[in-house]
Amino acid sequence: MNDYKSTKKAVYPGSFDPPTNGHFDIALRASIIFDELVIAVTDNDSKKILFTAEERLNMLNAVFEKEKKITVKILKGLLVDFITKEGAIAVVRGLRAISDFEYELQLASLNNLLNKSAETVFFMASDENLFVSSSMVKEIAKLGGDISQKVHPYVWKKLIEKYKQT
Amino acid sequence: MNDYKSTKKAVYPGSFDPPTNGHFDIALRASIIFDELVIAVTDNDSKKILFTAEERLNMLNAVFEKEKKITVKILKGLLVDFITKEGAIAVVRGLRAISDFEYELQLASLNNLLNKSAETVFFMASDENLFVSSSMVKEIAKLGGDISQKVHPYVWKKLIEKYKQT
Amino acid sequence: MNDYKSTKKAVYPGSFDPPTNGHFDIALRASIIFDELVIAVTDNDSKKILFTAEERLNMLNAVFEKEKKITVKILKGLLVDFITKEGAIAVVRGLRAISDFEYELQLASLNNLLNKSAETVFFMASDENLFVSSSMVKEIAKLGGDISQKVHPYVWKKLIEKYKQT
Amino acid sequence: MNDYKSTKKAVYPGSFDPPTNGHFDIALRASIIFDELVIAVTDNDSKKILFTAEERLNMLNAVFEKEKKITVKILKGLLVDFITKEGAIAVVRGLRAISDFEYELQLASLNNLLNKSAETVFFMASDENLFVSSSMVKEIAKLGGDISQKVHPYVWKKLIEKYKQT
Amino acid sequence: MNDYKSTKKAVYPGSFDPPTNGHFDIALRASIIFDELVIAVTDNDSKKILFTAEERLNMLNAVFEKEKKITVKILKGLLVDFITKEGAIAVVRGLRAISDFEYELQLASLNNLLNKSAETVFFMASDENLFVSSSMVKEIAKLGGDISQKVHPYVWKKLIEKYKQT
Amino acid sequence: MNDYKSTKKAVYPGSFDPPTNGHFDIALRASIIFDELVIAVTDNDSKKILFTAEERLNMLNAVFEKEKKITVKILKGLLVDFITKEGAIAVVRGLRAISDFEYELQLASLNNLLNKSAETVFFMASDENLFVSSSMVKEIAKLGGDISQKVHPYVWKKLIEKYKQT
Repeated sequence: MNDYKSTKKAVYPGSFDPPTNGHFDIALRASIIFDELVIAVTDNDSKKILFTAEERLNMLNAVFEKEKKITVKILKGLLVDFITKEGAIAVVRGLRAISDFEYELQLASLNNLLNKSAETVFFMASDENLFVSSSMVKEIAKLGGDISQKVHPYVWKKLIEKYKQT
Repeated sequence: MNDYKSTKKAVYPGSFDPPTNGHFDIALRASIIFDELVIAVTDNDSKKILFTAEERLNMLNAVFEKEKKITVKILKGLLVDFITKEGAIAVVRGLRAISDFEYELQLASLNNLLNKSAETVFFMASDENLFVSSSMVKEIAKLGGDISQKVHPYVWKKLIEKYKQT
Repeated sequence: MNDYKSTKKAVYPGSFDPPTNGHFDIALRASIIFDELVIAVTDNDSKKILFTAEERLNMLNAVFEKEKKITVKILKGLLVDFITKEGAIAVVRGLRAISDFEYELQLASLNNLLNKSAETVFFMASDENLFVSSSMVKEIAKLGGDISQKVHPYVWKKLIEKYKQT
Repeated sequence: MNDYKSTKKAVYPGSFDPPTNGHFDIALRASIIFDELVIAVTDNDSKKILFTAEERLNMLNAVFEKEKKITVKILKGLLVDFITKEGAIAVVRGLRAISDFEYELQLASLNNLLNKSAETVFFMASDENLFVSSSMVKEIAKLGGDISQKVHPYVWKKLIEKYKQT
Repeated sequence: MNDYKSTKKAVYPGSFDPPTNGHFDIALRASIIFDELVIAVTDNDSKKILFTAEERLNMLNAVFEKEKKITVKILKGLLVDFITKEGAIAVVRGLRAISDFEYELQLASLNNLLNKSAETVFFMASDENLFVSSSMVKEIAKLGGDISQKVHPYVWKKLIEKYKQT
Repeated sequence: MNDYKSTKKAVYPGSFDPPTNGHFDIALRASIIFDELVIAVTDNDSKKILFTAEERLNMLNAVFEKEKKITVKILKGLLVDFITKEGAIAVVRGLRAISDFEYELQLASLNNLLNKSAETVFFMASDENLFVSSSMVKEIAKLGGDISQKVHPYVWKKLIEKYKQT
């Protein structure tokens, strides 16, 4: 009876390169369902990454600094190990389109194979973020387009700085 | 600090005609994430229903009688009103294939339109239930096939009884 | 040089039972691309129809009465014959989800088979109408839900009247 | 060495109401892969069927009478029982669009559950038949359209007769 | 009354590396709907491009030289800026498979976000081009296969030249 | 009558980098349907390949050494030429998710264009392999995860060796 009142922690992993309004929305909504949410910024040495893991962590921290239930960490290695270390009961994933859906099905099946104790829980992107992706945001920003409606002002500022450097 | 320890209740709506192992699996997994889960058996006068709402409620109760976090109720009218009445924070839905996915996206968007305070949370069907559906179970049972691997023994018994009557 | 300035007429066929904001949006957007748009309300004796063809025509006329480029007609028989009679060069169709897409591909291929001179031209539903469908609108209205955000006030009034009668 | 030269029989089940060029194409292609192909016309009492099982059997027989490797039979009851009785090693299914694909995945998984010894083997519809379906053929024929390009002349004749009766 | 007779211009953007029969077909069909069609060859510094923007422009010009309603231009920067500069009212896109569809939905939503005045209009690939893609054409040509049925003779000649150089 | 007893050979092409249980399962199931199955390991100079063609051939040979109907060869150049040289009547392909399906439809259409005499025959992945892919296996192994349940012990050993070298 007492047991199910224990703290329920979830992990929301992603590359967040950069985080979009879609990511912020999912994180906030997931933080209502769970008691604690750890946003896990994946750090692998892919060359396609625009922002370093540190920069991405900072962007997420800047936006969520007042959200007491949300913390941001860098994830190296396997997600399943991270989940175990955190003592999380669930992985949070956002769903947008069909291709997302399949990839996510595969990932959920895999995570279940590697760690049966963590559940993958999906949140649909809200209508206004259904077509927002980090890669789209980068592509537009790179060509000088104004995509500031779909990212946080802080992220937008960093995007502009980044493309000026390039 | 105290606030996020309040009881988190979710509603898992469906026709469950009859409930399959896929439904039982989703309900159990959702009951780990939430503090309370109300399975809501929809009762509308569609002619395609094999079991009455009462019979479906009984099947679910029979299977979940020892699950203290799970209760089963009949849902008449709009889901969003039911959610409000229950004080639930989330709707639980299972996802299997692509067509599910689209329908669920539509439903989640709609529920959000009608009641912004309830989140829809999705669970993927586990691999062994990825292709199990109530309609498939009925079709096989009707033709005399043995689909007992995919439903609870109690449900199987009721299915056989039902098709003997017909 | 003169030739391509001839009037370009398109046909937008559908059951529109009832028309939603999604339909109105597509019709208006299509009327910018074409010189004339004929909305063709299909009239076949399916039992699932809530509003008579006459009622659906009236609803569309009420909404579009000031749109000079848009007329509304009832379509009996084959779409390809209607197109020929109207002298239209294109069929307009809205696209929402994947299942739409496949059905539309099939329909476009079929229409092309039956009448090579008419092109099918697709418009994506706008984000806010991506999950709006006539059947969803009816289902909600039938159960007493407020879906007035997704239909024209005139249509909403007719929906409420219709369900009071039932 | 001798063993794998035994006769390889497959079953191609379907409602074939009526058979289209797509069905004929799949059957002929499958009959190259297998030594014998039994086309199994499903006979269940659905009201949506236009032609009786007998009529559908006759249409298929008329078209395939010279194909020595192809026989046509009526299938009552479960497909898996039919397969066992026939001593078939495989079920042949045609694939067209996405929705086909999912339904077929489900069916293949189910048949495998009920009868592990029969394999489901899929053939893609050829480009010209990718959007041809029995229901589309019926819909067009019913409205007086000429869909004779997509069905065998014998089937076309029967379709016209059928709709004259109605 | 006079207003809707103004010249209706559309932009058909793409990488066209190389243009296939699918592209030519879409362009011709779109040029019937619109008064003018500008084919916009995207020029970004991706390494995966086989033909330079200049070469691709030349191929398209060679094929369309007699089509008075079609012009070919190189597109640098954002599509939405190009559209504004051209005074176009629509973007033309071809649709083939599901993955196309999603990407296109995303793109249309994005273009709408950046430039509300331009409509995206979709044309389905015709049956014979449903599976033709530039990347497939290149892959086959590179391995010495004969894919000349799916590209214009001029493009085929250039493809062979290109792969001889490599 | 004698004719259809001739040896029926099929080709199962793929990169198999590395082969997974899903691949082994499809190969075994296909070898029941056909008299001979040639597994064709594609050898093109993509940089993303982890194992050389030789290594992949060895892994497949190690696993299938006792399967008399299965041989493994390296495929350079076009699949259609390989098929002709082998005298095969069919190409075997496994199907998992939607994105597979589309790619496979395209490939089958293409192969049919280049070589009308070879049929593409599809086998669904079995439930336990529905989400297993070579790329997933590599990703997990690279990060030190234990994915040995989804590959043959010999492949697993080679994977660990490979990632130690890196």
